[in-house]
Amino acid sequence: MKATEFLRVISSRDFPYRSIRLLASERSAGKRLPFEDREYTVQDLAAPGAFDGVDIALFSAGGGVSRKHAPAAVASGAVVVDNSSAFRMDPEVPLVIPEVNPEAMAHVRLGQGAIVANPNCSTIICLMAATPLHRYAKVVRMVVSTYQAASGAGAAAMEELKLQTQEVLAGKAPTCNIFSQQYAFNIFSHNAPILENGYNEEEMKMVKETRKIWNDKDVKVTATCIRVPVMRAHAESVNLQFEKSLDEDTAREILRAAEGVTIIDDRPSNRFPTPLEVSDKDDVAVGRIRQDLSQDDNKGLDIFVCGDQIRKGAALNAVQIAEMLLK
Amino acid sequence: MKATEFLRVISSRDFPYRSIRLLASERSAGKRLPFEDREYTVQDLAAPGAFDGVDIALFSAGGGVSRKHAPAAVASGAVVVDNSSAFRMDPEVPLVIPEVNPEAMAHVRLGQGAIVANPNCSTIICLMAATPLHRYAKVVRMVVSTYQAASGAGAAAMEELKLQTQEVLAGKAPTCNIFSQQYAFNIFSHNAPILENGYNEEEMKMVKETRKIWNDKDVKVTATCIRVPVMRAHAESVNLQFEKSLDEDTAREILRAAEGVTIIDDRPSNRFPTPLEVSDKDDVAVGRIRQDLSQDDNKGLDIFVCGDQIRKGAALNAVQIAEMLLK
Repeated sequence: MKATEFLRVISSRDFPYRSIRLLASERSAGKRLPFEDREYTVQDLAAPGAFDGVDIALFSAGGGVSRKHAPAAVASGAVVVDNSSAFRMDPEVPLVIPEVNPEAMAHVRLGQGAIVANPNCSTIICLMAATPLHRYAKVVRMVVSTYQAASGAGAAAMEELKLQTQEVLAGKAPTCNIFSQQYAFNIFSHNAPILENGYNEEEMKMVKETRKIWNDKDVKVTATCIRVPVMRAHAESVNLQFEKSLDEDTAREILRAAEGVTIIDDRPSNRFPTPLEVSDKDDVAVGRIRQDLSQDDNKGLDIFVCGDQIRKGAALNAVQIAEMLLK
Repeated sequence: MKATEFLRVISSRDFPYRSIRLLASERSAGKRLPFEDREYTVQDLAAPGAFDGVDIALFSAGGGVSRKHAPAAVASGAVVVDNSSAFRMDPEVPLVIPEVNPEAMAHVRLGQGAIVANPNCSTIICLMAATPLHRYAKVVRMVVSTYQAASGAGAAAMEELKLQTQEVLAGKAPTCNIFSQQYAFNIFSHNAPILENGYNEEEMKMVKETRKIWNDKDVKVTATCIRVPVMRAHAESVNLQFEKSLDEDTAREILRAAEGVTIIDDRPSNRFPTPLEVSDKDDVAVGRIRQDLSQDDNKGLDIFVCGDQIRKGAALNAVQIAEMLLK
């Protein structure tokens, strides 16, 4: 995710910063970037003293960069909010969705170097909708199928989807640089590596991160992660099994009261959440809320969730974590 | 679905026809259509004697037409193979996938007027993969999320997806005639009407037709049906719960031996079924075959299935039913 997404969120939320420092690899150092009446020069994050005086360091450059440079930031007293997967499963590192488990970072203090991890985008979007229901009826098992956008693979992937679509419409062979196969007018299993158990890494993130965020080792989760030719918002079909009964009207009330969640569930006009509708929006949208016919005693629900992968799935969630540090 | 799809399948399978008669509404009567060295003139299906001498009548013009005209075909002694949903749940009418439940039409004889119903495309594609596993370990519950192509809504929908995509790429507002919203670079809940229980008709077809085809009133099914911007093949993420244990290696062996099923499950190179790959193919492709981590004792599997909606989802299945009548 680009630094500009962070800056957009910081600006739109009036984040109370004293000063901003833009750090990147040596290759990008020296570039100039305008932001809110000023122009900033990108600095080398590996330079000595790069993090001096930094209270909060938002990292979003992949696991390798985080592993290499977050320790220096922590050593200089910064709280690192890390968007990569590098530290998410580290038992010392809180994994936080502010609306879901703010208590996990209660011990983190500004001025005392630490890392807080931002969960995977698919996990955030799913749990924004599932957690309010989980608090009421306790989720015991969750079956998720995702419909993931190009943005999760970066800006170049979004460009490739656009280029491929133009090519296919013109009757040409599609350019496959980022993805190994045609993405235009096609869907495919998420390109993350497949692990020994047959799940891909994206799916296992949903399994493991849900357990950590809910602080519930026993919750059962299975996921199938699929890429669809959509630009920047993810959708998820989520089947929930509860310990307690939960009827759909109560579920709708619970979700209506949930922070960061919008209900779009207009059955007569067949209007439900779509990736397009939530693109560039902060809230996660939930719809198709209905009692699962395949479970007894109202102990199951089916829901359909959409969220902007770049916004709540990454930059917004990280900036919200930073805001909590200021409280 | 167009008659030309039937003709393509009839031709490619060398279906042993004596003669072919093309029937349509009065509006289309008189049109000429070339097929295998001949040219046919479309005739009015409402004309007296339209079905005289017809052994097998393939209907594919929507529920209204089937309800209105199938009785005349049956009365004249034809076996109607009906692609619409009109008769599927009629207890007198067998609902048949030849690889799955041929026994359901054992009593149907050529020359003795009858109706055989072709299941919904999503049901056929799902059950082609699930049935061999069901025979071994008995499916007790199935959670399905679909990724459905434009073709399910007809040729005009495919054209609209193409047109919208061109418009969106050109920065124009998309034309929405067939669908009520943007389909290009977007996904949305299947456009079938929503029923009182919150499911849409497409989803309830999967629930009810599965029970009828498997002749198992107790099998529990839930489905969430979603349209994705793909042209002509459907994909489905299927989570299976079994009565008996079934490990993934055995599942793979079973599916390898299943008629009409191809396994595409290459984990090291991340190659799995895609709608594009199965387009214009007869077989349903299955991959991502893995033990479901959220179920104990190997009593669960996750699979990902793709099938050509027009071919096995409709025309091919109907022609296979016709072939069985000749045996």
